Amino acid sequence: MPNRKLLPCLFSLFLVMSVGLVQAASNERPKPRNVILIIGDGMDDHQITLARNYLAGAQGKVTLDEMAVRGSVQVLTVSDRDPNKAVYVGDSANTATAISTGTATSRMRIATSAQADKDLTTIVELATQQGFKTGIVTTDSVTGATPAAFASHVSLRFCKDPTQMTGAKVYDRIPFHCEPDMKRNGGAGSIAEQLAASDLDVLLGGGQKYFQHKGEDSSLTILEQAKANNFHLLTNSSELSKPQPDHKKLLGLFHEKVFPVQMMAEHERAAEQPDPSFLNYFHRYLGSVEFPEPATCVSNPAAQAVPTLKQMTTAALDKLSHNNDKGFFLMVESASIDKESHIRKPCGQIGELEQLLETVELARTFADTNPETLILVTADHGQAAQLVPDGSMYSALNVPVYSPGHIARVITPEGSVMAVNYATNTFVSEEHTGVNVPYFANRQLPEPLPTMLRQTELFNVMTGFMGIHTPQ
Amino acid sequence: MPNRKLLPCLFSLFLVMSVGLVQAASNERPKPRNVILIIGDGMDDHQITLARNYLAGAQGKVTLDEMAVRGSVQVLTVSDRDPNKAVYVGDSANTATAISTGTATSRMRIATSAQADKDLTTIVELATQQGFKTGIVTTDSVTGATPAAFASHVSLRFCKDPTQMTGAKVYDRIPFHCEPDMKRNGGAGSIAEQLAASDLDVLLGGGQKYFQHKGEDSSLTILEQAKANNFHLLTNSSELSKPQPDHKKLLGLFHEKVFPVQMMAEHERAAEQPDPSFLNYFHRYLGSVEFPEPATCVSNPAAQAVPTLKQMTTAALDKLSHNNDKGFFLMVESASIDKESHIRKPCGQIGELEQLLETVELARTFADTNPETLILVTADHGQAAQLVPDGSMYSALNVPVYSPGHIARVITPEGSVMAVNYATNTFVSEEHTGVNVPYFANRQLPEPLPTMLRQTELFNVMTGFMGIHTPQ
Repeated sequence: MPNRKLLPCLFSLFLVMSVGLVQAASNERPKPRNVILIIGDGMDDHQITLARNYLAGAQGKVTLDEMAVRGSVQVLTVSDRDPNKAVYVGDSANTATAISTGTATSRMRIATSAQADKDLTTIVELATQQGFKTGIVTTDSVTGATPAAFASHVSLRFCKDPTQMTGAKVYDRIPFHCEPDMKRNGGAGSIAEQLAASDLDVLLGGGQKYFQHKGEDSSLTILEQAKANNFHLLTNSSELSKPQPDHKKLLGLFHEKVFPVQMMAEHERAAEQPDPSFLNYFHRYLGSVEFPEPATCVSNPAAQAVPTLKQMTTAALDKLSHNNDKGFFLMVESASIDKESHIRKPCGQIGELEQLLETVELARTFADTNPETLILVTADHGQAAQLVPDGSMYSALNVPVYSPGHIARVITPEGSVMAVNYATNTFVSEEHTGVNVPYFANRQLPEPLPTMLRQTELFNVMTGFMGIHTPQ
Repeated sequence: MPNRKLLPCLFSLFLVMSVGLVQAASNERPKPRNVILIIGDGMDDHQITLARNYLAGAQGKVTLDEMAVRGSVQVLTVSDRDPNKAVYVGDSANTATAISTGTATSRMRIATSAQADKDLTTIVELATQQGFKTGIVTTDSVTGATPAAFASHVSLRFCKDPTQMTGAKVYDRIPFHCEPDMKRNGGAGSIAEQLAASDLDVLLGGGQKYFQHKGEDSSLTILEQAKANNFHLLTNSSELSKPQPDHKKLLGLFHEKVFPVQMMAEHERAAEQPDPSFLNYFHRYLGSVEFPEPATCVSNPAAQAVPTLKQMTTAALDKLSHNNDKGFFLMVESASIDKESHIRKPCGQIGELEQLLETVELARTFADTNPETLILVTADHGQAAQLVPDGSMYSALNVPVYSPGHIARVITPEGSVMAVNYATNTFVSEEHTGVNVPYFANRQLPEPLPTMLRQTELFNVMTGFMGIHTPQ
């Protein structure tokens, strides 16, 4: 029946011609091209599974599961001593730098190259130069490693304000300095000073304390410098939800440092070490073991003092898309998935991942009415938390089998218990891991996205989509 | 310039019409539709990252990274006591059952339902009934949980042969039985007996020992029963590479039990516990710690006694595609990624993942000349191994920070060291994890594959592609 064969062909011709005509029309007045990059700090597949089980149930789906494209990202880190040498586990500074500049660097570095310490141009800087608006939103201090790597350049992530450029110590123990980055040495100063002097249109997060210091060789505080650079200051949620002045850039500093998290276990419990009986000290197969009691997750009242990630992103999208024919680049970070995992608090991780999901949902709604919007969601690196059996798989053997690290047992709304293991070390803060992390995109591109990207290639995907010219 | 607009339209019309004509031609004589399901037991993203870093380097890609589609799979397990209750970590028995039957069940079960213990029809059985050829290839004993769940039904994975149906013990300690599955009770007997009686066209792997027993209420050994069921027996690699008899089914049993693995650390070293100094016993921040020496991976000479996964799969594809107009279902398992992770041997994990990659490459070559072939690669569940910093991220603090579990340090061919942490327990065998696992497909389907699938939905994808009718 040739007619039935011909029909789809004609229909296809119609479609192809329509697309051609629409393209012809749109070529005359191109739509603004926007990239919304959403980073879940430390959000590897374990974190997503924990959040899915808790928020949607084992059979459920979260908004990330509905994205059109999903792939994996190989996290890239190199040695500072030998930049040709691979290091298999990164930190938020070098991994954010890989994404923001397209260059792999060494741990602790903010948009500077390994060893040579050259400034690496970021997507925010390129976008600004080429007429796009730019914004950064985070639940961290805006001087945190992830936001900092998009709009500043220093050799060490710790150099957040002028008091930390020389003579300071990490953990009150390890001396460090960023002297070459000081203005007196021809540098651009601390992270906060660079952010205050930046061309960002929107910068929202925590970290008020870093802006209260006087700038290096200046009689103005960094906050005053920011205001002189046309930033309008917001400090609470109600200011954030009001209409913003058109001719001003937005600087929102809603907390002293990092935002308090949305969710926590009752009594703020973290994971605990299983408690073996006396006999078990003589041999690991003797005696018995007590596991921590299961915990319920509850809202953290302290979080009411700060806006949610979604509220901040709403304000950022309003500002960036207003009177904007060219488009924008916006980086949004849910920072404390990582931080809560470091301190072994699964309820906190889940609550911050929920914030990210709400923000992804918001971005998808924005993209519905702004079709030339690419939403990319990814993590910077893996984290320590592992979903393990609640009670060992070998418990029938009647020997005490348990984690040598810390265990939290979370009661899920569907009425089961998730056991989460933290055992990369016994320090106050767990290690990152080097696992490849997922990425998600809301749409396919003309050149389909590879199912696996090196972390530096995320930079190319974003600049390519926006049509940003990148230096060789 | 309307001509330049019209050209792509005409080209598209040409393309569309060509596809239409080709479809019209192919509709008259449909091509065989094949599914090659490749399972990496325990192959979560950590395992893939470890293998990628070792085999291709941190900047490299492995063949899985070149697949057209990548998504994630939510592993599904339920409680046997309450089948409506989610359990967040599975074992190979219930997770293989989810894939092979489309039904979530409880741990240890082989294609039987939680609590009710009803037999669940497998894709192998449905495919056979509907005229497809079927095959199973594994580096495990063919009676292992993953292969077993595709072609047999028992309440417990341990019931591999008639001696294990009643009065046996796991780990010489825990009594178990599968009495309702015994033939005398109206069951189908042990896993080995069911495989010997099956309609499989190809069954290749280890596990000779389970076939040497006499069948329940039979004067024949299970191997003799298999021969009586038209299986041609192969026991070594050279027999495998010869042309096989056309009219016989293939049973390859190349090892007593599980295959020896391809790769190991020098001196067969496993991960070791870091060795803290005496002072460190008094306080965790006192003293120092010695980490295990880095290890080089080498070939395991014992592996020469068995065929590779690729050799077995080559023979299986030859057999299944020969004189076959309808198509086939083939399940291939690289089993010891999981087993080596249980016993903390990263070189073993990497070597078995390399076997899987070689097999994926082979399958892709097969699909090049057999276009109606869907290759699906996935894992059944997550595993304990974590890629962690080689030396703590906090080592600059000069306090001994180290894993409370076991650490292996693998020297990679690119000259760096990968540290792998195993710390889900201190038992002889690590726990599984509940992380979602990746899936890969060689091609997109007419109805695009969701970027996240529940594990049971893999069954629907495969039966849907082959056009297999499934019971309600």
